[in-house]
Amino acid sequence: MTAVPTTHVVPARTGLALTVSAGQRVAIVDVDGGQVGDLFAFSSVDPREYLSASHTRAFTSRVFPAIGQSFMSSQRRPMLRVLEDTSPGYHDLLVAACDAVRYRQLGVAGWHASCADNLTAALTAHSITPSHIPQPFNVFMRTPGTLDGSIVWLPAQSRAGDRFEMLAEMDMVVALSACPSDLAGINAGELSDLALVVSD
Amino acid sequence: MTAVPTTHVVPARTGLALTVSAGQRVAIVDVDGGQVGDLFAFSSVDPREYLSASHTRAFTSRVFPAIGQSFMSSQRRPMLRVLEDTSPGYHDLLVAACDAVRYRQLGVAGWHASCADNLTAALTAHSITPSHIPQPFNVFMRTPGTLDGSIVWLPAQSRAGDRFEMLAEMDMVVALSACPSDLAGINAGELSDLALVVSD
Repeated sequence: MTAVPTTHVVPARTGLALTVSAGQRVAIVDVDGGQVGDLFAFSSVDPREYLSASHTRAFTSRVFPAIGQSFMSSQRRPMLRVLEDTSPGYHDLLVAACDAVRYRQLGVAGWHASCADNLTAALTAHSITPSHIPQPFNVFMRTPGTLDGSIVWLPAQSRAGDRFEMLAEMDMVVALSACPSDLAGINAGELSDLALVVSD
Repeated sequence: MTAVPTTHVVPARTGLALTVSAGQRVAIVDVDGGQVGDLFAFSSVDPREYLSASHTRAFTSRVFPAIGQSFMSSQRRPMLRVLEDTSPGYHDLLVAACDAVRYRQLGVAGWHASCADNLTAALTAHSITPSHIPQPFNVFMRTPGTLDGSIVWLPAQSRAGDRFEMLAEMDMVVALSACPSDLAGINAGELSDLALVVSD
């Protein structure tokens, strides 16, 4: 097909959910660079089936999937196959999404946008109420494990225009949050936009 | 208190769930050695709050908690503080519980016991129906990550009598499955019993 890719901007600090069909490609683009995103995915047929970090690691025998491997669902079915990564290659599959409790513990008084709240809000538009907040795929997040078993939290090194592209392997709803964290040192510079680019 | 510890044997291939009060100590004991266990925990007040691997890693900034650190809940509250580990120190906090789908994919025709089914059955006795199978803490499981990002599946090195002891930091239901996997090479020798030892 020669259909033009559709670009959906995810403004800084917010989230967006889209339906994607099996066979379509989904790219996450860091519009201005240095911005972490939290990606979630749910089966369109039964949203109780979700992209699962722990099932992905069990299937790939990797801490993070290699090019050509798939993010797996909680039912051990392939959901999103990794096609291409133009970024420096730092991504996180270890750490929970930020949420209201996290910001309270970091000393924030009052409301603070979070990836968990962004997910919940984005899914409402698709009439999905998740049973829990699954562990996300944190694209462009630079939190490598080290030899002594510790995880270090470093600013994203993704550059403007860097993209992480995947092939949808089932019909699904994908949700992306442009991470609003301004307290953990993971986003470089100002919080900025991401984009989801969907192509046939 | 001088109360005598209570030992609850978890027979090979099966699961057991127990209520534990804040302040009690819970030890997982490898009775005969070489046996992996999948541990889950749920708040007694609201079982939707569960021991979460990804929130534990976010809080501890470690792939696996060190002595003195806590396994955290999905609400970022401390659940089980690590007190002592007499084993060689291999445990897993990366891989999903085995389940019926896993055994089908490994070529098993018909039913095979699994940690996911053991969990569900054990919780039924406590009138808890989990919304999903949380990622477990896989005690004594030797699946270290390596420098190239791969995870290797190796037989458990825990010896007869090795124990991993924790302090309960809230009222909870803990569930332990003596992992029935005989296909992934993670249990050494015959599948065998574990024990949960609860003390005041």
